[in-house]
Amino acid sequence: MEREFHRWIKSLETPSPLVRLGIGDDAAILQGESEGVTIPGILVTTDAIAEGTHFDSSKASLSLIGRKAIAISLSDVAAMGAKPIGAVMTLMLPSHFRLGQVQELFLGAKKIADQFQTPIIGGDTNCWEGGLTISVTILALDLCSLANKPPWLLSGARVDHLVVVSGSFGGSLLGRHLNFEPRIALARYLVENYQVHAATDVSDSLSLDLSLMCSASQSAHLMQSQIKEELGVELDWESIPVHPDANRLSQTSKQSALHHALTDGEDFELILAVDPEEFARMENDVLLKQGAMKLTAIGRFVARPGFWLLGPACREAFEPRGYTH
Amino acid sequence: MEREFHRWIKSLETPSPLVRLGIGDDAAILQGESEGVTIPGILVTTDAIAEGTHFDSSKASLSLIGRKAIAISLSDVAAMGAKPIGAVMTLMLPSHFRLGQVQELFLGAKKIADQFQTPIIGGDTNCWEGGLTISVTILALDLCSLANKPPWLLSGARVDHLVVVSGSFGGSLLGRHLNFEPRIALARYLVENYQVHAATDVSDSLSLDLSLMCSASQSAHLMQSQIKEELGVELDWESIPVHPDANRLSQTSKQSALHHALTDGEDFELILAVDPEEFARMENDVLLKQGAMKLTAIGRFVARPGFWLLGPACREAFEPRGYTH
Repeated sequence: MEREFHRWIKSLETPSPLVRLGIGDDAAILQGESEGVTIPGILVTTDAIAEGTHFDSSKASLSLIGRKAIAISLSDVAAMGAKPIGAVMTLMLPSHFRLGQVQELFLGAKKIADQFQTPIIGGDTNCWEGGLTISVTILALDLCSLANKPPWLLSGARVDHLVVVSGSFGGSLLGRHLNFEPRIALARYLVENYQVHAATDVSDSLSLDLSLMCSASQSAHLMQSQIKEELGVELDWESIPVHPDANRLSQTSKQSALHHALTDGEDFELILAVDPEEFARMENDVLLKQGAMKLTAIGRFVARPGFWLLGPACREAFEPRGYTH
Repeated sequence: MEREFHRWIKSLETPSPLVRLGIGDDAAILQGESEGVTIPGILVTTDAIAEGTHFDSSKASLSLIGRKAIAISLSDVAAMGAKPIGAVMTLMLPSHFRLGQVQELFLGAKKIADQFQTPIIGGDTNCWEGGLTISVTILALDLCSLANKPPWLLSGARVDHLVVVSGSFGGSLLGRHLNFEPRIALARYLVENYQVHAATDVSDSLSLDLSLMCSASQSAHLMQSQIKEELGVELDWESIPVHPDANRLSQTSKQSALHHALTDGEDFELILAVDPEEFARMENDVLLKQGAMKLTAIGRFVARPGFWLLGPACREAFEPRGYTH
């Protein structure tokens, strides 16, 4: 129902002078003149997480839950190539919560917010009879427009772009979904030094978010050129960075580690669409070879519809699937 | 617990170059230079409302619930003398919700957002096993700084300022808490034409929000001048605008209409601290005499601590109380 609702909302959207980018991407962008002043590109992104859906407070510490609430939105900021400048947070607390518990939650949120120079500047706290929910909105400065580059949209992928990812995938449920590192520094470095045509972060799953990039890009291309061009993805399955957690999980799940990498979700790594020549430049950049900055090309966008896995001697259709909260 | 938590959060706050106003007022303000660009005063305010706490969906239409979610934050924007420029909304939907229901909710939100030229530019929608919660963040342009005036803080009231209010009070539970008009137009007119020393909007209650203004102002005065000055409020009880709903409610509640006006909450009217000479100017302004723009002086800030009601021949201490969600 969420997808259908979002399509419907999008169809109601009308142009507005300050809205450079509206509903449907990892963040919206406000930019332009109002009341005689110039508003530079200000990104806004918002996410809610809730007990039983995004975390289980009987298993996760409140500190990590607070951390996750902020980190999810920071990951959206990274996926837009932006610099976070402030966060607000609303809390619906179960009525049995004690002060010490909400303090622990807040300290977890504040620690990662501080780490990324994102002051928490406001909020709203309420007690109620329901479960814990946390909603975070982060404001950010659009670094792309400052670098005179187009924004990092979901919809900028075209045939022959490479599919480039940060980090590795799968098994985040073993704990990484609570303590992942938003790719803010990597995104900034890429905005300042390279051309990126499309970007998003992996929340639902590598396969699902990548196919979302495909369909958004195909629609945008049709809108811009009036030419319908099929857009699909071919991934070289041996090049997909599989996280050790995916291997661990596959020992009990009866599914392959690769399957986990493609479908688990909440990896919060970046998916980028990059020209092959530009990626060749990236490959010669020692900073992009290791740790949190490491990039891997895992396949490319092709004119053939669908989602394909390529092995040394085979090609297989893959049904994108993801984490349903 | 909320108050104690907010005091604790406030105590953790550290100065940050872009944060002109942080936690503790009706909104925060980001302003300054970053990455070589100027960010004009951008206000951010956020509020969450939840089933059973702020509304009862067995009695209120989903359209009005959506309306309220946006209107509460617009009221905060008015209380800061700002111009809304965009809103984002997160929804936690009960799992039994159908598409038509969330559409009805959204249309109620969008209608009032459109009315106040506030495009809804993003959000996050999730289904869960809990009750309906809606969290809204609104961004706004700080009109005070554009008019070269100080911001409308909660803490700007001083001895001898008049207590000036918009609209009338009490009995909002009979329905007005769902369909009140945020005082955006009035606030803008006042910023452009008058000097206002302190402002807030009435969510908890006239008496509670006014005493909050008192204590915030007393603390700010002590911080600025290093001189402790008591600050209290004297209200002329005959001048307090009592809403007809308060009269209706008093017929069954066994409490006076005045008591309802002082303690009911969710009126979402403005409370302003204004110099007596400035208010004399306002009194000669025909635009401020009627309808949504009408202002009433109901008392003044005094050097005597406490909250006092003055009648023709008496003075009575009043214990500020408000709506506990």
